[in-house]
Amino acid sequence: MSIRVDYRASLSLVGTVLKYLSVPLLLPVVVALVYGETLAPFLPTIAITLAVGLGLERLAPEPDIGSREGFLMVATTWIAVALVGTIPYLIEAHGIPLLVEPIHPGSTLGNPVNALFESMSGFTTTGATVLGSINVTDHTRGVMIWRQLTQWLGGMGIVVLAVAILPELSVGGAQLMDAEAPGPGIEKLTPKIAETARVLWGAYLAITVVEILLLYGLDLAGMAGPNMDAYNAVAHGLTTMPTGGFSPQARSIEAFSAAVQWVIIPFMVIAGTNFALIWQAIAGSPRELFDDTEFRGFLGVMAVLTAIVSGLLFTGGFASGVPEGATFDAAYLSETVATISGNLEPTVRHALFQTVSIVTTTGYASMDFDTWAPPAQYALLFAMFVGGSAGSTGGSIKVVRWIVVAKVLRRELFTTAHPEAVRPVRLGGTALDDRAIRGIMAFTLLYVVIFFLGALVLFLDVARAGVDFTVFEVISGTASTLGNVGPAFYRLGPMGGYIGFPNSSKLFMVALMWAGRLEIIPLLVCLMPEYWRR
Amino acid sequence: MSIRVDYRASLSLVGTVLKYLSVPLLLPVVVALVYGETLAPFLPTIAITLAVGLGLERLAPEPDIGSREGFLMVATTWIAVALVGTIPYLIEAHGIPLLVEPIHPGSTLGNPVNALFESMSGFTTTGATVLGSINVTDHTRGVMIWRQLTQWLGGMGIVVLAVAILPELSVGGAQLMDAEAPGPGIEKLTPKIAETARVLWGAYLAITVVEILLLYGLDLAGMAGPNMDAYNAVAHGLTTMPTGGFSPQARSIEAFSAAVQWVIIPFMVIAGTNFALIWQAIAGSPRELFDDTEFRGFLGVMAVLTAIVSGLLFTGGFASGVPEGATFDAAYLSETVATISGNLEPTVRHALFQTVSIVTTTGYASMDFDTWAPPAQYALLFAMFVGGSAGSTGGSIKVVRWIVVAKVLRRELFTTAHPEAVRPVRLGGTALDDRAIRGIMAFTLLYVVIFFLGALVLFLDVARAGVDFTVFEVISGTASTLGNVGPAFYRLGPMGGYIGFPNSSKLFMVALMWAGRLEIIPLLVCLMPEYWRR
Ligand SMILES: [K+]
Ligand SMILES: [K+]
Repeated sequence: MSIRVDYRASLSLVGTVLKYLSVPLLLPVVVALVYGETLAPFLPTIAITLAVGLGLERLAPEPDIGSREGFLMVATTWIAVALVGTIPYLIEAHGIPLLVEPIHPGSTLGNPVNALFESMSGFTTTGATVLGSINVTDHTRGVMIWRQLTQWLGGMGIVVLAVAILPELSVGGAQLMDAEAPGPGIEKLTPKIAETARVLWGAYLAITVVEILLLYGLDLAGMAGPNMDAYNAVAHGLTTMPTGGFSPQARSIEAFSAAVQWVIIPFMVIAGTNFALIWQAIAGSPRELFDDTEFRGFLGVMAVLTAIVSGLLFTGGFASGVPEGATFDAAYLSETVATISGNLEPTVRHALFQTVSIVTTTGYASMDFDTWAPPAQYALLFAMFVGGSAGSTGGSIKVVRWIVVAKVLRRELFTTAHPEAVRPVRLGGTALDDRAIRGIMAFTLLYVVIFFLGALVLFLDVARAGVDFTVFEVISGTASTLGNVGPAFYRLGPMGGYIGFPNSSKLFMVALMWAGRLEIIPLLVCLMPEYWRR
Repeated sequence: MSIRVDYRASLSLVGTVLKYLSVPLLLPVVVALVYGETLAPFLPTIAITLAVGLGLERLAPEPDIGSREGFLMVATTWIAVALVGTIPYLIEAHGIPLLVEPIHPGSTLGNPVNALFESMSGFTTTGATVLGSINVTDHTRGVMIWRQLTQWLGGMGIVVLAVAILPELSVGGAQLMDAEAPGPGIEKLTPKIAETARVLWGAYLAITVVEILLLYGLDLAGMAGPNMDAYNAVAHGLTTMPTGGFSPQARSIEAFSAAVQWVIIPFMVIAGTNFALIWQAIAGSPRELFDDTEFRGFLGVMAVLTAIVSGLLFTGGFASGVPEGATFDAAYLSETVATISGNLEPTVRHALFQTVSIVTTTGYASMDFDTWAPPAQYALLFAMFVGGSAGSTGGSIKVVRWIVVAKVLRRELFTTAHPEAVRPVRLGGTALDDRAIRGIMAFTLLYVVIFFLGALVLFLDVARAGVDFTVFEVISGTASTLGNVGPAFYRLGPMGGYIGFPNSSKLFMVALMWAGRLEIIPLLVCLMPEYWRR
């Protein structure tokens, strides 16, 4: 182990990531060409990311990465790509001095803080938005597909992070994910990571393409509703697999038909499933998927919450009036109640869609769930703390950690009654080692503590700025950004957004999204003085 | 260790507790005599508790108590005394068939579920109320002093539970509280427990008397406001030391002068402090108190939260209008804002009073804090999870556990960056053993899980009953009953109450108060099948 952290090696790898980021930037270029739009937002972005990437790479031509360099690299990568991601937004709003006129000068993303929020929300696949108007007339189609693409690219990063990197770094019990014994660092495993990444990205791309084709097929068959077209099929295909939840439609998936909503549900489930298992299932052993403790728990928790929400909605569990901060009017509310209450298909569809969307931390909306009465809303708030599976693109605490926590608590009760007893905690037949258990207990508690403290910080900041939010709004907004879910409630609801927060609060939520996505610990590790010493 | 749980031994000890309960029942008898009221609510209660107590004692004349019997005894004691505690309430409302006419037939405590809620709220020193009208005209002074006395007696039980019994049972890391090595059971320690109890109860009684005399002294000096008299001095003396919070005044401590509020603050602080340290300080070594890590943390967290709330209130952090469910009108709100906002003494007094009241889980109110804007309200909700010190009558998670959690999380970050490092967690100079650390981590997480799940259960029940509560109300009500705090927000606010819940929800909250008071684990241990086998 080196005496000091070799930050050059870390930054060199970040440079490699930035260099490769220039390739997918060709997608918005193609879209802009197809729709006859300006290329101004993208060509400078490609140039900058290439230049910065190649520059950083030169810091250490053959980077030697130990575990401490791994933490720095992971933490830095997301902020670096998020910064690059702001460039198209800023150019769309401001143009380029002396060269290009502003394209949409009224864009809310002209504010650099908003641009960073939207970009970090994209690359962390959170899906919280500060766009004022969500459509392809107040923004170019190229910029709107870039917004979708940030999530798809973020998802690619997360798959590798979750399946290959965090387990090597033993973050919060993530070593459970690793089939092999944890090693001292990731340097010798780079070939393995590269191989893993190739395989998983292939599956990720293939499933994305299947979803796009299905959505577009529904459109061709006239079953997708008037708003679906090839553009929207691609746009939503790009944000499902990363459990992202961005949509170029202001009304999210409510803009489409019931058939589209039914089709998207299984893709959200896949996106919230361990990718290594998905790949095994594709490669021919689907049994392992259904034998997996976490997958069964993941399906189970969604089934229970769907049943609860269905029961509540079917029996008329809607708001009795338009609440403060709601983004709907009395007409929408009464139509919603008339359509859903007492009707089985819409009840089950919306209950299942919203439950799956929040548990997997996708964040799509098939309806404005701010019309729901508090009990069903609380069920969604509760779901925000469940999270997807480990090794998926889902955020939050994750199902496997809750399973281990439940088993540890069960053991604690047992050993309290029988202090002489020794009882290992088993998962899928193997006894977990103490180090992994400690990591999981610590991570889960850390997550909850940051949630409670984060809401306090956010409240102090909005009070300082003189902006009014309710306790429910701030609590749910904190849970949603930290858990990379996206929407919260009322002003922050699925048809609302985070634009009402002061800039300082938005920057704090950028940090929450960033921390949540990296499973918190890598970020905090880099903030410890001891990390830099020794 | 016995093959089966010796439930007779446990119940025999519960019988002893019930037998002794007949003695303090003489206080309401004396009060009723002084005010010329009927003795009907109390004489049958004395007879019943004596008869049941003596009967249970005969189940095992010389009970041999191991740790498993200890759990059963602890869990059963609180429900047994709570049941006895309902008798005066029920007799007041219904009389005694053929013998005594109803005294106050309109009492809400005529509903047995309400009576049980109020009694459990008393003996667990929670202070949540389902009284419809809180005064001494709709209830007798005898019954109202019984309500206060349930908290004082509950506090006596908790002092012994927290300092002597839970540490022996190694509940949730409570062994930290124990100066000696944990033994296999509590049977051989009964003499020690009896001795400890005598000493601590002496201090508890002495401090209670001092507070009563101070409050009555303020009244004699004409400085306590028109509502103070000997009766109220005694009534509030009985509910401060147990961090209880019941008051015979509908407006709680707002009914009295600023001087009374200032006097009560230090007594709440004492009540939230480790009783063993308080006793040592009285016995001549106050240094140990101020050297204690937990006591410093306890003062620190109250100082920070007071500063935050003071800043918010001083700068006008009040509601902009009367919110739904609030128990105040526009006139009260505007008068409150005019009195507090921008005025130093009232700001600091109310901020300090409410913060101390909630952190210590006392639950008194010096004002209706539902007039506060959401940021300051959230600070109180946050405070509900802090709790008093271990070894105090305070509820919730408790400061020492948070200190250990913080140190464990710090260590987790360190060992994540330096996997080869071994670093003990120290508290007050001694390294904690792994068993205690595991207990604390498990307890804290269990508490949070029960909070999240409890709110879900409560929401399903109110939805089933067709009663409307907001997310903030149900969340805060769950936190407040589980943490034995008492008041929550709006309908459940300091000037409101829990009467609007359906009976089933009230019974669930009885379980929450019971579980919270026993530090959850003893109750769950008794529910495990393995507890009864082997
Ligand atoms: K999301
Ligand atoms: K209380």
